[in-house]
Amino acid sequence: MGANYDALLAHLKEITNINNAISLLAYDQETSMPPGGSAARAQQLATLSKLGHEMFTSSQTNDLLGAAAEEISGADYDSDEASMVRVVQQDYDLATKLPSSFVARMAEETSLGQKTWAKARENSDFQAFLPALERIIGMMQEQADLLGYDEHPYDALLSQYERGMTTAQVKSIFDAHRPKLVDLIAQVGDAQQVDDSMLKLNFDRDTQREFALWAVKSFGFDFERGGQAEAVHPFCTNFSVNDVRITTRFNDNWLNPALFGMMHEAGHGMYEQGIGQNLEGTPLAGGTSLGVHESQSRMWENIVGRSKGFWSWAMPKLKDAFPQLGQVTLDDFYKAINKVERSFIRVEADEATYNLHIILRFELEQELLTGAVKVADVRDAWNDRFNAFFGLTPPDDANGVLQDIHWSAGLFGYFATYALGNLLSVQYYNQVLKDHPSIPDEIAQGKFDTLLTWLNTNIHQHGRKFTGTELTRRVTGEDIQSDSYIAYLTDKFNGVYGL
Amino acid sequence: MGANYDALLAHLKEITNINNAISLLAYDQETSMPPGGSAARAQQLATLSKLGHEMFTSSQTNDLLGAAAEEISGADYDSDEASMVRVVQQDYDLATKLPSSFVARMAEETSLGQKTWAKARENSDFQAFLPALERIIGMMQEQADLLGYDEHPYDALLSQYERGMTTAQVKSIFDAHRPKLVDLIAQVGDAQQVDDSMLKLNFDRDTQREFALWAVKSFGFDFERGGQAEAVHPFCTNFSVNDVRITTRFNDNWLNPALFGMMHEAGHGMYEQGIGQNLEGTPLAGGTSLGVHESQSRMWENIVGRSKGFWSWAMPKLKDAFPQLGQVTLDDFYKAINKVERSFIRVEADEATYNLHIILRFELEQELLTGAVKVADVRDAWNDRFNAFFGLTPPDDANGVLQDIHWSAGLFGYFATYALGNLLSVQYYNQVLKDHPSIPDEIAQGKFDTLLTWLNTNIHQHGRKFTGTELTRRVTGEDIQSDSYIAYLTDKFNGVYGL
Repeated sequence: MGANYDALLAHLKEITNINNAISLLAYDQETSMPPGGSAARAQQLATLSKLGHEMFTSSQTNDLLGAAAEEISGADYDSDEASMVRVVQQDYDLATKLPSSFVARMAEETSLGQKTWAKARENSDFQAFLPALERIIGMMQEQADLLGYDEHPYDALLSQYERGMTTAQVKSIFDAHRPKLVDLIAQVGDAQQVDDSMLKLNFDRDTQREFALWAVKSFGFDFERGGQAEAVHPFCTNFSVNDVRITTRFNDNWLNPALFGMMHEAGHGMYEQGIGQNLEGTPLAGGTSLGVHESQSRMWENIVGRSKGFWSWAMPKLKDAFPQLGQVTLDDFYKAINKVERSFIRVEADEATYNLHIILRFELEQELLTGAVKVADVRDAWNDRFNAFFGLTPPDDANGVLQDIHWSAGLFGYFATYALGNLLSVQYYNQVLKDHPSIPDEIAQGKFDTLLTWLNTNIHQHGRKFTGTELTRRVTGEDIQSDSYIAYLTDKFNGVYGL
Repeated sequence: MGANYDALLAHLKEITNINNAISLLAYDQETSMPPGGSAARAQQLATLSKLGHEMFTSSQTNDLLGAAAEEISGADYDSDEASMVRVVQQDYDLATKLPSSFVARMAEETSLGQKTWAKARENSDFQAFLPALERIIGMMQEQADLLGYDEHPYDALLSQYERGMTTAQVKSIFDAHRPKLVDLIAQVGDAQQVDDSMLKLNFDRDTQREFALWAVKSFGFDFERGGQAEAVHPFCTNFSVNDVRITTRFNDNWLNPALFGMMHEAGHGMYEQGIGQNLEGTPLAGGTSLGVHESQSRMWENIVGRSKGFWSWAMPKLKDAFPQLGQVTLDDFYKAINKVERSFIRVEADEATYNLHIILRFELEQELLTGAVKVADVRDAWNDRFNAFFGLTPPDDANGVLQDIHWSAGLFGYFATYALGNLLSVQYYNQVLKDHPSIPDEIAQGKFDTLLTWLNTNIHQHGRKFTGTELTRRVTGEDIQSDSYIAYLTDKFNGVYGL
């Protein structure tokens, strides 16, 4: 393009390089750093974050954006250039809405908040966390005001993670979704229960790693452009489109965390690896929203990884790796990995119960933000609502309101994206099936390239060019909805539980 | 202290944070990064290096140094404050002597040079490397002029790695050292040779790792403030006094690389871990020179790790780990790990031959710099001199002039520090023995804390406060010399070879 656009790009690439270095500092912290390193690491992160933030929110960025916008005026909406200027201008407007004094205060409050929360959860003592939570929710209200919104203060928080999505939209989807989930879970509860004891034998850790690596390599995660390491709380991160790291937690006596966890993170990872090389090193090289990101991880983990087809292909290999599973039938294994169980802890939830955990949080977050629920009352509100949704009451705060780190970290508006990801995973997959009806057969033969190529072409390559809403419309011709997900669940659990 | 000194320190700590992030980017590159990540990593390193360099060479640094110097005038030479201002002013003067255009040209030339060298070495083809080497040596001459020197242009290059040391000093040490080494090696060559075949059996990699980790943990390398990973070319790096990483190369059929390599890197690592917490996060938190650094790695690797006392204690544990060594006697094992062999490759050289490899390079580097040897003739000069020193002629360029990466990377003046490290290791150790004659007995009982504490107190804690020369005088009351090392070698190899 022209000189102005090139100057913008050079500036943005420097900032992206700093941000990628920050990601590496964080990755190393979770995977390799010895305990002694934490104080220095916090300093390093602070210095680089400050530098990157200063460079991005400088008036230079705005000037470069303005000059580039003029130069490329008339370029296609879809073009790299128009997308770069459009999306980065939105990022800039968002980033400059929060004064650095507010950002610093928030960093301090949430850093302290996370420590307080960890201790409170350990002691299962909500009261110990309450003062910190009150301060954080006060700051969330302030943040919503600073960011601005049309209808609901929660809109401002939500759209940080799902650009352009409104509370009303999500609420209408979840309101329709919730009773159907409650009903499905009740039906499953009345059915003959599933035995998953074969997943809870002793499994050698190295063999678990080897098998899970084989699985995600088969999917198409590219280890020439990626790596895998251990972490207590698994995640996926990247420092380039060509350098994507996934992490795994191993449990010696349970197959699921490493196996399905690796598939999940590889789903995130293949999204990042699939982003167009034309966007490499720029702010557009990343997943477009948390919901769309989660749709990719859930598709590979659940729709592919928990399908009977996949295991009809992978079962012999699994039995080679773990002779203790020699007598297990495909049918029993399939049922075991799809067992539905009402439990207190979100991160352990299955496909059927997961979204219900999310909806509970989504509702409470709005009520906390507007003051409809007082912070002091949120523990009781949580327990009451949990009972209404699941027919169970959390035995203590650690199994209830204190279980997640998010609120202590100031991540309001974040939870919803997990459920949106589940919904989108099925919507996208249904679209793949329309384009390639043979995909389930291919999966049963250990062939995943048609699926991955479709995802690369239709979703991954665009990076952050389009919002999640725009992308979903382009790909499926419709908006996000929950009917397809309910149909998918009903069909699947009819099979597993003979409903 | 006062406000000016505090302002200087805050500025320096930001720069140090950037430099530590750079070290992590480099560490990850060598230990975890997939091949695909290299292009992006180069960009990230370039951005952070540029930022750090700009911040350090800015006039702000000079102004802060000046204001702080005034504020602390009269502070003890040894104090943190006086040392900070003195050493950082030297760093600043050095860093600002090279214009950024020169630094950029050098980065480009050496990046290209390393690629050309790698290919040339692969094909054992010196002529293919010659044009690049000519350009690099031209730049070395330029660099010496830019940095400035009193007597010899080589002084300027050498003192980048050994502050304040001159070519004449090193030359006089090496000139005395060389004939004694040649003589010793010839004597060993005439003696009954040593069998080291028991070191070249098949050794399980995980067991190698476990045993070597046990050894360096016993030495006192602190894994609460450090870690270990695999790398093709082992090294030690750190991102804090409290976060020191060592790396290891494993050979399934040879015990030495992982075992003695881990001891060597842990020696470097304990130096970094021993630096005073008062210097943490500042430019003084680091080893003072490459020679002093190497003295620490060589002391733990050779003087401790290759001693009979150490193995009288560690041998039962080694036999537990590797039952295939069950019949090996302590005496035979001790001889095997101290085998002397004239070989072409420096990095494989033993304690007796190592320094001779270095002296050869030290002489050639000066001759190249002054033009006494033409670059086109350096291969022949290398081979002739190698024959004069070792009585052998390299069979090809890969085993001769092309074996090391250093010249292609513009690292002239660097090699000498390896030999200086060997000399210093014995000088320091002799001083420890004067203070604590019981140390050899303690080592034979697996006790290393008296030694490590002595090193912490006398050497490590000072970081970069004193130059290597200053430190050696403080610690031993003398200057660096080669007599002690020759006496150590003679004594040791009398024992091994019955000279």
